[in-house]
Amino acid sequence: NQTFELDSNPHTRLNILTGEWVLVSPHRTKRPWQGKVEDVTPDNRPEYDPKCYLCPGNGRADGDSNPEYTESFVFNNDFAALLEDTPAGDMNEDDLLVANNQRGLCRVISFSPKHNLTLPEMSVEAITAVVNVWQNEFNSLAENDWIKYIQIFENKGEIMGCSNPHPHGQIWSQGDIPLEIAKETERQKTYYAIHRRSLLADYLKLEQKKNERIIFENDHFAVLVPFWAVWPYETMIISKRHVNSIKLFTEAEKKSLAEAIKVLTTKYDNLFETSFPYSAGMHQAPVNNGYYPEWHWHMHFYPPLLRSASVKKFMVGYEMLANPQRDITPEFAANRLKEMSTTHYKISKT
Amino acid sequence: NQTFELDSNPHTRLNILTGEWVLVSPHRTKRPWQGKVEDVTPDNRPEYDPKCYLCPGNGRADGDSNPEYTESFVFNNDFAALLEDTPAGDMNEDDLLVANNQRGLCRVISFSPKHNLTLPEMSVEAITAVVNVWQNEFNSLAENDWIKYIQIFENKGEIMGCSNPHPHGQIWSQGDIPLEIAKETERQKTYYAIHRRSLLADYLKLEQKKNERIIFENDHFAVLVPFWAVWPYETMIISKRHVNSIKLFTEAEKKSLAEAIKVLTTKYDNLFETSFPYSAGMHQAPVNNGYYPEWHWHMHFYPPLLRSASVKKFMVGYEMLANPQRDITPEFAANRLKEMSTTHYKISKT
Ligand SMILES: O=P(O)(O)O[C@H]1O[C@H](CO)[C@@H](O)[C@H](O)[C@H]1O
Ligand SMILES: O=P(O)(O)O[C@H]1O[C@H](CO)[C@@H](O)[C@H](O)[C@H]1O
Repeated sequence: NQTFELDSNPHTRLNILTGEWVLVSPHRTKRPWQGKVEDVTPDNRPEYDPKCYLCPGNGRADGDSNPEYTESFVFNNDFAALLEDTPAGDMNEDDLLVANNQRGLCRVISFSPKHNLTLPEMSVEAITAVVNVWQNEFNSLAENDWIKYIQIFENKGEIMGCSNPHPHGQIWSQGDIPLEIAKETERQKTYYAIHRRSLLADYLKLEQKKNERIIFENDHFAVLVPFWAVWPYETMIISKRHVNSIKLFTEAEKKSLAEAIKVLTTKYDNLFETSFPYSAGMHQAPVNNGYYPEWHWHMHFYPPLLRSASVKKFMVGYEMLANPQRDITPEFAANRLKEMSTTHYKISKT
Repeated sequence: NQTFELDSNPHTRLNILTGEWVLVSPHRTKRPWQGKVEDVTPDNRPEYDPKCYLCPGNGRADGDSNPEYTESFVFNNDFAALLEDTPAGDMNEDDLLVANNQRGLCRVISFSPKHNLTLPEMSVEAITAVVNVWQNEFNSLAENDWIKYIQIFENKGEIMGCSNPHPHGQIWSQGDIPLEIAKETERQKTYYAIHRRSLLADYLKLEQKKNERIIFENDHFAVLVPFWAVWPYETMIISKRHVNSIKLFTEAEKKSLAEAIKVLTTKYDNLFETSFPYSAGMHQAPVNNGYYPEWHWHMHFYPPLLRSASVKKFMVGYEMLANPQRDITPEFAANRLKEMSTTHYKISKT
């Protein structure tokens, strides 16, 4: 009679941050792939593209021109999904048709003047400058007392819906608390009420003891594949200090975060020797809405690739209708990423 | 001073089936698209492909050969994500690392012997045969008392991760109740406890009164764009009779469902004159787990296309990290689908 093994038997794992389960099918990697093979976007952009609305000096949709910036550059999204001047209003018919207005502010951050320079190829100092912009933007958006949540994120790569290859990130801030943040608030609050400790601090301590899913650590941050990861090479950066937002990061922490991002994204690029696509973003406490002592800052990376630079995981039928599902185990993914060099493959090859 | 309008101002809408909100940004369709343009898979397959593991008479991965079937054909998935013989077991370390074994059975249904015949191109009679297979499979899977939920679905098109273009659907059945079903159970149960009526029956009545989002109706089913739709052309088929699973459908209902599927998928194909990709699937009550009087059978269609056959909506950064978001309004999508002919464009063109 067989015994149950996480690395070979189908099972579910609990996401302690959302309370949701993921279905893991470790044996399913044997499945041959006859489906869609993605085009790999050629990685040969020039340093400057006269048609790019993010390059220094070029024009943008709102008629403005970008300054000749030398580090990073921030502006209001010209096609923002959320607008500041949305009038108040709502609708409720029999609790069946229910809607509310939603105000917001959307910002775009060009990471570097160079059209072809992605985060892993930037220096730790240059990434630190981006972290500084994130912190400043967070602080100044939070000055609007009607803003309750600030989502800082990056869509990297065409396959992740990125509409301009010039490396950039976005910030969407809004008057309500979005779904994923509401879930993580509830779970962290419950844990904190019982233990008087941060859920993620305790989780990180256990992961350090086990040492099966940690990919990288420095003085202030740990990078790991969460036990409940959904995307094949999903990872999370957790701050070692229990702080509830980027606002509280010291100079030393910001530099450490830049280093953690550089190491992780370099390993990602090395995995399939491609500019590794992902959506990544920070989760932190809501603002202007009371006190959130339970919240513990972290950053999620959700990359779609599964087998190679051109074969991704599809979150489709079963996943959309029933439950998230993954094929390789988080431990397998963590080992692969641990093995990867911290020197970018483009440099090793020259 | 402006007044709040659902068709022009950013707002959130409540999904009454899950309790979650979607962010709607109606003004955002003006955004130019410079991002990824999908390859459109050429729609010129032969009726029979000797290399296809679903065509009659051909060999499959498990060594078996398919029979020379003439309607539809069902077999166990050769690369199932869930397996019947998974040993019992679980894990819990400090409520931080939590896992459970998961048993299941996965089936594949070839819709027709013809390699190139999708649902909209099949006759109502031939689709009725598929509905019969769904009902039979549901009934026989439910005979396994350890199975608690049966997810019937179809991934259509390469862009939806479909790994074989021969039209087929899948069934994943399992020992636990998956996430989306747990959410819909809770919401329907709460409504039923208060009103002693089905949530979806009341919702459908209100939609019939408003007549803004209904695309098609016959004696037994209505097809509509739900008020809270997330995907650009997302729709739902709702049974007019309050039954909690496909098990209870009469012969007349099964034929009506086949007709509703034919009409909807034909309109979909006509929208961008392409074989319209989607993931679709039924939601119904769990099995072998007590009585679910609140549950109301329905079928969701989640299609990714937004602007054309080659430009899809990306559910990425903000959507993955914070909240689902859509650009066109559900009312706009419903109008477009209402306008579409019920004669397939390939027939109109010949
Ligand atoms: O089972 P298939 O068609 O090989 O695979 C497809 O559908 C499954 C169920 O939605 C997904 O888990 C896979 O990612 C997808 O590629
Ligand atoms: O804002 P962008 O880069 O034009 O658009 C991209 O990111 C947004 C935020 O995640 C998504 O809503 C869009 O679907 C995606 O294409």
